[in-house]
Amino acid sequence: MVTAAKSATGLEPSPSQRYCRVRRQTLALCGTLEAEDYVVQSMPSASPAKWHLAHTTWFFEHFVLKDHEKQFRPFHPQFDFLFNSYYQTVGTMHARAARGLLSRPTVAEVMDYREQVDGRMLALLKGKPSAKLYALIELGLNHEQQHQELLLTDIKHLFASNPLQPALVDAPYRRRKQALPAPRWQKLAGGIHEIGAGDGGFAFDNETPRHRVLLEDCALADRPVSNAEYRAFIDDGGYRRPELWLADGWALVQQEQVGEPLYWNAAHDGEFTLSGMRELDPDAPVCHVSLYEADAYARWAGARLPTEAEWEVFAAALPVTGHFADQGIWHPQPVADDDKARPAQVFGDVWEWTSSAYGAYPGFQPLAGSLGEYNGKFMANQVVCRGGSCATPAGHVRASYRNFFYPQERWQFFGIRLARSA
Amino acid sequence: MVTAAKSATGLEPSPSQRYCRVRRQTLALCGTLEAEDYVVQSMPSASPAKWHLAHTTWFFEHFVLKDHEKQFRPFHPQFDFLFNSYYQTVGTMHARAARGLLSRPTVAEVMDYREQVDGRMLALLKGKPSAKLYALIELGLNHEQQHQELLLTDIKHLFASNPLQPALVDAPYRRRKQALPAPRWQKLAGGIHEIGAGDGGFAFDNETPRHRVLLEDCALADRPVSNAEYRAFIDDGGYRRPELWLADGWALVQQEQVGEPLYWNAAHDGEFTLSGMRELDPDAPVCHVSLYEADAYARWAGARLPTEAEWEVFAAALPVTGHFADQGIWHPQPVADDDKARPAQVFGDVWEWTSSAYGAYPGFQPLAGSLGEYNGKFMANQVVCRGGSCATPAGHVRASYRNFFYPQERWQFFGIRLARSA
Amino acid sequence: MVTAAKSATGLEPSPSQRYCRVRRQTLALCGTLEAEDYVVQSMPSASPAKWHLAHTTWFFEHFVLKDHEKQFRPFHPQFDFLFNSYYQTVGTMHARAARGLLSRPTVAEVMDYREQVDGRMLALLKGKPSAKLYALIELGLNHEQQHQELLLTDIKHLFASNPLQPALVDAPYRRRKQALPAPRWQKLAGGIHEIGAGDGGFAFDNETPRHRVLLEDCALADRPVSNAEYRAFIDDGGYRRPELWLADGWALVQQEQVGEPLYWNAAHDGEFTLSGMRELDPDAPVCHVSLYEADAYARWAGARLPTEAEWEVFAAALPVTGHFADQGIWHPQPVADDDKARPAQVFGDVWEWTSSAYGAYPGFQPLAGSLGEYNGKFMANQVVCRGGSCATPAGHVRASYRNFFYPQERWQFFGIRLARSA
Amino acid sequence: MVTAAKSATGLEPSPSQRYCRVRRQTLALCGTLEAEDYVVQSMPSASPAKWHLAHTTWFFEHFVLKDHEKQFRPFHPQFDFLFNSYYQTVGTMHARAARGLLSRPTVAEVMDYREQVDGRMLALLKGKPSAKLYALIELGLNHEQQHQELLLTDIKHLFASNPLQPALVDAPYRRRKQALPAPRWQKLAGGIHEIGAGDGGFAFDNETPRHRVLLEDCALADRPVSNAEYRAFIDDGGYRRPELWLADGWALVQQEQVGEPLYWNAAHDGEFTLSGMRELDPDAPVCHVSLYEADAYARWAGARLPTEAEWEVFAAALPVTGHFADQGIWHPQPVADDDKARPAQVFGDVWEWTSSAYGAYPGFQPLAGSLGEYNGKFMANQVVCRGGSCATPAGHVRASYRNFFYPQERWQFFGIRLARSA
Repeated sequence: MVTAAKSATGLEPSPSQRYCRVRRQTLALCGTLEAEDYVVQSMPSASPAKWHLAHTTWFFEHFVLKDHEKQFRPFHPQFDFLFNSYYQTVGTMHARAARGLLSRPTVAEVMDYREQVDGRMLALLKGKPSAKLYALIELGLNHEQQHQELLLTDIKHLFASNPLQPALVDAPYRRRKQALPAPRWQKLAGGIHEIGAGDGGFAFDNETPRHRVLLEDCALADRPVSNAEYRAFIDDGGYRRPELWLADGWALVQQEQVGEPLYWNAAHDGEFTLSGMRELDPDAPVCHVSLYEADAYARWAGARLPTEAEWEVFAAALPVTGHFADQGIWHPQPVADDDKARPAQVFGDVWEWTSSAYGAYPGFQPLAGSLGEYNGKFMANQVVCRGGSCATPAGHVRASYRNFFYPQERWQFFGIRLARSA
Repeated sequence: MVTAAKSATGLEPSPSQRYCRVRRQTLALCGTLEAEDYVVQSMPSASPAKWHLAHTTWFFEHFVLKDHEKQFRPFHPQFDFLFNSYYQTVGTMHARAARGLLSRPTVAEVMDYREQVDGRMLALLKGKPSAKLYALIELGLNHEQQHQELLLTDIKHLFASNPLQPALVDAPYRRRKQALPAPRWQKLAGGIHEIGAGDGGFAFDNETPRHRVLLEDCALADRPVSNAEYRAFIDDGGYRRPELWLADGWALVQQEQVGEPLYWNAAHDGEFTLSGMRELDPDAPVCHVSLYEADAYARWAGARLPTEAEWEVFAAALPVTGHFADQGIWHPQPVADDDKARPAQVFGDVWEWTSSAYGAYPGFQPLAGSLGEYNGKFMANQVVCRGGSCATPAGHVRASYRNFFYPQERWQFFGIRLARSA
Repeated sequence: MVTAAKSATGLEPSPSQRYCRVRRQTLALCGTLEAEDYVVQSMPSASPAKWHLAHTTWFFEHFVLKDHEKQFRPFHPQFDFLFNSYYQTVGTMHARAARGLLSRPTVAEVMDYREQVDGRMLALLKGKPSAKLYALIELGLNHEQQHQELLLTDIKHLFASNPLQPALVDAPYRRRKQALPAPRWQKLAGGIHEIGAGDGGFAFDNETPRHRVLLEDCALADRPVSNAEYRAFIDDGGYRRPELWLADGWALVQQEQVGEPLYWNAAHDGEFTLSGMRELDPDAPVCHVSLYEADAYARWAGARLPTEAEWEVFAAALPVTGHFADQGIWHPQPVADDDKARPAQVFGDVWEWTSSAYGAYPGFQPLAGSLGEYNGKFMANQVVCRGGSCATPAGHVRASYRNFFYPQERWQFFGIRLARSA
Repeated sequence: MVTAAKSATGLEPSPSQRYCRVRRQTLALCGTLEAEDYVVQSMPSASPAKWHLAHTTWFFEHFVLKDHEKQFRPFHPQFDFLFNSYYQTVGTMHARAARGLLSRPTVAEVMDYREQVDGRMLALLKGKPSAKLYALIELGLNHEQQHQELLLTDIKHLFASNPLQPALVDAPYRRRKQALPAPRWQKLAGGIHEIGAGDGGFAFDNETPRHRVLLEDCALADRPVSNAEYRAFIDDGGYRRPELWLADGWALVQQEQVGEPLYWNAAHDGEFTLSGMRELDPDAPVCHVSLYEADAYARWAGARLPTEAEWEVFAAALPVTGHFADQGIWHPQPVADDDKARPAQVFGDVWEWTSSAYGAYPGFQPLAGSLGEYNGKFMANQVVCRGGSCATPAGHVRASYRNFFYPQERWQFFGIRLARSA
């Protein structure tokens, strides 16, 4: 088990401390899992918890230790095959959809794997790593944080598919006493702005380079769409009116007979959460909607989704605070009665779908080598989401952070913030 | 945990003893499983070990306790839904292909379920059950034995699909010192014979009624086809010659690029077993072939498969002895050098494909009520296998026993005994 | 165009006359087709009319002319590829499911093909073919007749899938004035009987050898099940009661939401026919049911389907007369008011599902060479139907004739005759 | 048959003349088709020629005549169902993938339909239509032109799937005598530009509104990528190097075993064209590549695809001339030896993939009513192509024209023009 070295100053975590904290946080999420829960893959785009634990470890082993340990020996000769996610240039890999077929290695063996790699990583960190090496480790830690969120959303999907509907936690949810104020538009002045990650802290390659964008005057809503508002869309026939939908979304809604967000019950008064089935809170942000649903809602509401550039300019002035995974609630909460700050919930609670296809910024250069596959090769068919969610580790996102998913996906905590042209 | 009551006479197991022995045997098969191994469903027609343990228990709870306990209360209100296999008249059930999505109930909870139901069953058995009730319990025990075999074959399929290729046991395999004698034909005189289960011990409804059949003179081989013989078929282009194949079999071989029995390696010198990857023994009976492969081999060999009536008349005169699951080897073995009895391996080692479609005997009556679904409704599209295998519990089969599978299935220990018309 | 040579005696058709009559009959069925109708394949197991016209011609060209013409030259170098149906030993062939992609050769080109091959065949027939050659030609003519029936059933399926619901003919249908008498049981004495084709006229290899069978006393209904009777089954919840169904049939009914025979309308008062949508005649034999539906109906009615041996012994004493395709009605008709002969409609009107899986008779030998693929390789997964239908050419069937289809198929004129054990 | 009214001035076609010319041009493309060729749908995203002829006619009937004829009566009560392509708000429609099942209406009936609607349209045009009505008719004519291109590409796909490989024409192809000069980069100055359709001629709603875009300095190639250049990419292992590919493209290449552009032969020295199989011209623009292939080629070449804004600014200064469908060649040709104008082939020959996802321009408003479904609802998952092809009617495209397809599609004449950042 990782135990953190002390920071010299006590003010800021040392690299070893930071490494240990992130790695421990992953295990903390699994505190209430049974061994059986680690094994199952409930759909091809989800992964077993066990796989997340092993893959994030393999990431350090393969991309850090392999090139920086003097006498590198892999923990297991087949883990390169089993726990490579999608790095085609590294070599062949186990089929993604078959991750749930692997009862072995056991959870205990995966924990051993984590412990051994952690020991070797800490040894490496003691050796005062170069800035370049530390950047690589920081990438590994950010990667691990991404899988922390996936671990939560994948467990949620798994538990929701079980008629026994188990819960991961029993978290207290906030309820408002006062009526939730109607959303208001917050203006954004057009003109040439800059977006993307500049110098400073860690950023993924897909956030770079920082570059100019031309915006027209527009406005964004000062809070996400609520469950009550989304229910009004449903009650107005939202899922039965083709004129509201993108063609591919309409086809999907017809084919799969979709009539509400993922995890809502049929009566539209309850939803499955990581705390089990709970009453639907009308004031909480709607979540688990696809891009198609978000877009149809926006059209119904006479608005549209923001572009990612609009969103980023909007968010860049705000502190990166909000409801993140560290609170252990793992479900979006309504704005507190006494929280008058607006715009609200730009960061945390729910990822906000934009209208922007995920693509390369002008002058984009992926990382060198196999890590170039991390982000760049997904720049087709996916859509950008922004802002992080209640399942995102605190400190992981920023205004320039670009998450990306296929438009039909719903199992992440996806929500809606409206925009309109001025 | 079940502990057997003592038999009064000491000569024969009491009903309680028999119940306990069968139930304990199921758990004994799982001795080396990890918790993770109980969860996974490696293909739709296989089930997780956990499911087998729970379903066989549900069988007693639903079909015995529910009608015979004075104050019946189900162990869990949803187990009727989760662990009903295919009894449509009982009610709706969890989708078969989704059995591997259930991480809960945990293995421990399933073991609790078994223990509680065992306690209630033993209480019932203490009350001197009527012959009718005992017949029901005996059906449940035979049902449990069938799932013991499935548990082994499903675990084998699971382990084979894991690149780490785990083993359930490390069993010693017998090897012959002398050459395996060529098979010889044993004649069977035509005329009117009787087949099917008569009075006497337990039999499934599908073995009844005992009835007359008209056979022509024929002969059956005195031992099953060996791996070496089957390899000669392959080497002679067996999988590339359409004239040897039934049309549906040829289509399958083309589509799935089949070139050897399931679990053989590509070099045809090793095969995956429940003891891991082992050298292919040329003298052992070939196994894990489909009906199509068995039929093509027979055609190539200038022979045919026996009908089930031929097989039963052939077997009826023999003692029901052989290599069954109780030996803990779980892989077919070659005839021992000093075993000169012929025909050999009629019972045990491998199930023997017949050419007979599985159908109703003249005058067949399924059991009353929902248990009528046990056997009768499968009398379409399936083919009869006879004789039991190395994974069948000793004492479970008899000459009249009819097992049935789809012709493309291979994951059971299916082998080949040739026949020819006189 | 084929024109028949005159028979010397005038009493019986000469081989040339017979050839011409059968070939002409195929074209006669197409009299009202538009060029566009010849092209489409409405499901993988149906074929375009154009394909039937060409394939039956190819059969003569490949299996007769190729070996018997002195200077054989194929009509087109690719027709062996395009119009081989399933003779794997002949060579590779165009994918069955892609037959509807071929807009070329055009209908006119296929007609040219027929005409040329007919000319060459007639030249061959003038040369006094040997008995062996004539047997081959007779096989080709019987083959052509089988495709005549398929041509009608495939066109029916095509027209039914078109919202415009075109008709091939506008045939007058008979209606009864008197109530249809209830079916009565006709006894069949058990014992050893003989079935299968003996010496005499043409028979397919799968009808041979003639052999002994042992029957128990039983009885067959004296007429097929009527539409009114089948509607009573539906009204009694027949399609919603799992206890009536074979497992595979129930799964299909659930999955495809089947609630009535193919071609019935939702109100169960009309059915699509080759004369377009017509009122459902309660007295006509029900048709276009699968084996599963036939079996479920029989169980509901407290009866069962006959075995093929029972059917054949029952039919063997009767003249092979009835309502066949030559009447140009192409839909089963109710027994005429004044037709008191019983059993009725054993031949013609509807094929009668048996409970017998299609398999080899004891001692069965397929034809030599590629023609051995004609019947033998389909002896798995299919079920025997007997008696011919209103779409079968008169003179084509006999008591020993074995037709075979997959149990889920419905597009042939399949009906039901009940049986029961004595 | 439509015959054009004379233009009063003789200088420019009158509305009636224009209507007739476009409608006649559709029929002219079908000159060499056989009736059978009109029926088949060779893949779900292609349509039968018959359907194109009817659907374009329905477009005028439904969107023009229905609202503007005093006593509108539909030609056929079911054509609204059969020939509505995707206008969900109009009502239910025949399944797209089942268009090839309709042997009726026949080609002759569809021609009658065209003739009747043409007559009614010409009557309407005689009545001096309002500008608004004429805009609607102009939309219908542009719509018809789009289907002219689809008709050619769908016939090409159909003929290519036929082993007989028929040809629609036998067109002479130009061959160069001199070596094709290497491509050169043409610079484009960054800054704020305007793109989109402004006032003036006809444009689709998705080209509007004209709006400002911010470009960085960049350069575009002065001609499309040639077959020889693309073959060098293949020979360099282009299809086997995952680092060159977008993830979804790589998955597709693996799954479908793609190794060359659609219609190339396996030797890479010939390609199927609308003039049948032809030698591959190394100097002609490569075509029938997916967005994935175009993107992988660009990455291999050290370049990238242009954005649609870059492309449009690049093209806006050029005359809209080039090789279009009116030349009757229907295959991209190499630049003529004596054609020194650069950039070359910006319009015509091949559609040029951009890197831009197809989306809404800032302030985009779709057309009112059901015609709002024409373009807007496809703004997800598709990618913009620009410039028209050798199958596009002359006069149909312009610099602002946005075509859009799924990234995996290949059956249109898709080519590649490279770009790079300055």
